Formats: sequence, structure tokens, C-alpha cells
Amino acid sequence: MSENFDLNDKKFMEEAVKLAFKAFRSGDVPVGAVVVKEGEIIGRGFNKKELTSDASAHAEMLALQEAAKYLGDWRLNSCALYSTTEPCIMCSGAILHFRISEIVFGVREPKFGGVLSNVNLFDLDTLNHRVKYRYGLKSELITRLMKDFFRKIRDS
Amino acid sequence: MSENFDLNDKKFMEEAVKLAFKAFRSGDVPVGAVVVKEGEIIGRGFNKKELTSDASAHAEMLALQEAAKYLGDWRLNSCALYSTTEPCIMCSGAILHFRISEIVFGVREPKFGGVLSNVNLFDLDTLNHRVKYRYGLKSELITRLMKDFFRKIRDS
Repeated sequence: MSENFDLNDKKFMEEAVKLAFKAFRSGDVPVGAVVVKEGEIIGRGFNKKELTSDASAHAEMLALQEAAKYLGDWRLNSCALYSTTEPCIMCSGAILHFRISEIVFGVREPKFGGVLSNVNLFDLDTLNHRVKYRYGLKSELITRLMKDFFRKIRDS
Repeated sequence: MSENFDLNDKKFMEEAVKLAFKAFRSGDVPVGAVVVKEGEIIGRGFNKKELTSDASAHAEMLALQEAAKYLGDWRLNSCALYSTTEPCIMCSGAILHFRISEIVFGVREPKFGGVLSNVNLFDLDTLNHRVKYRYGLKSELITRLMKDFFRKIRDS
């Protein structure tokens, strides 16, 4: 799906990509995410599953937690989340719980994606909260980063 | 669904119920959970969403994180999780990520349940990992606890 992205979208996704590189360097699948409120980044995260031995330490989860801590409130209604890859089932559930308004992600996650690749959690009729989503931003760069990571793992 | 539960199941669910009472007293929806490995509780959690202003601080999530920290490993393959209520979408995703073998829960969660009440995340063909589940243990006590909580909230 081709979407229109503006300069702000690009700026925030660039920040997410930088965070993904941090995960890459520490030996985790390279995913990065930021939470944005009124043009300001208030939460950052990169995948730390191996680094912290915590299977829930995904980029999106950590960015959401940091944003809520910053605001002192778990309600992130007016916030957007930018993530290099499609949030997984767990993180899509967290995005709903934190009441994020909108997400933008780079590439789909065929195995565990919770937005449209595996289950469509944001389209469930039973849930009151609605999350808008767009994707495809910086997808070539992110795809290359992921491929480089898995090649490195395979060859090591 | 009526299931057969043994004395160990009952013991672990009693511990989860005690943790749910802690959530009740601190003003959070009363949910408690424990992670068990070889007959020993290695992770405990109760809902701390309001207490910590963190929408991801669910009982199950905290119990899983504590168990992984205890083992120094996010792989909880040989562990079971006991929770007073059906894990939500987010926590069901976490249960898959942590590779929990089996879960037992008390009552269904019609609004956000990720096991069978809203989506059936453990039955997705696309996922490699399989999680067995049983439910209905101590359901009357847990239902009363939940009702008491929501009555308290409504009347306050």
C-alpha cells in the first residue's frame, strides 16, 4: 500500500530507524520505535529481547512505557507511534491499551504482525478504541537492515 | 467448559487469587497471575496499571517478566501460567513470545480476551508455538471479586 507521508512522518521514522540500528548493534532483531505527541518525541524504544532476556522488551512496548512514564499517565490518546516494522500481536494489544490514536510502520511482519499480516487487531468490532494505521515509509532501508541482520546471524 | 483440576492447580490458582486481592486493594482491576516451573512459583504479578500509570502492567505480563528475570532467560518453555482471568490480547501475545507451554485461567474476559473470548490467538495456524489452555478454576470466587471491585468503583 502506497501512502502519503509528510516531512514530519519522515523525521520520526528516521529516528525509529536510528533506534533499530542500536538493536542491530546489540545483537537483537533491528526494530526501533518512537511515540510522538504534538510534534515531540516523548518515548523511544529499540528491541532489547536478547539484551535483557525479556521477550516482552520490544521496541514499541518500551517506547509506549517510556511515553506513559514521561506523561505520568497511561492514556496516550493524542499520541502517534512510529515503528520500523509492523507491531506484533502483543504490541498491537499494548497500542490498544495505551489508546494510541495512530501508528505508522515501515514494513509488514508476516509471522507475528498484529495489524494486518496475521490478525487484524485494530479492526475487531468488539473493541471500542480505534487505531488508524499507515505503512510503507522507508521500507527499502528497513528491509535491507533486516536482511543484513539475519545474514549476520546465519553466518556467525 | 468444565475441566479437571488437581491439587497443584488449585494451589497455584489460590496464589493468583491472593495477588488479585492485592490489585483490588491498590485500586486496580483485580487480576493476579503466577508462573510455575516444576512445581515452583518463579514469577508473580498483579495488575498495576493505575498504580504505576503503565497500561502494560498487567498481572500476566509482570509474572512472565519476573519469571524470565529469575531464570535469566526469556524462554519459559517448560512453564505454566495461572491467571485469575483470561489473558488479554497483549498478554496472550506475550505468552506466545515467552513460549509458555500451558495456561490455566479462572474466568473469561469477554471484552479483551485473547484466548477464546475475542480472538483465538493460540489457535492461529501461522504460529509455530502452541499453548494449551484450561479454564474455569475458582471461577465463582473470581467473578465475585470482580463484581465487588466494579461495584466499589461505581459507588465511589
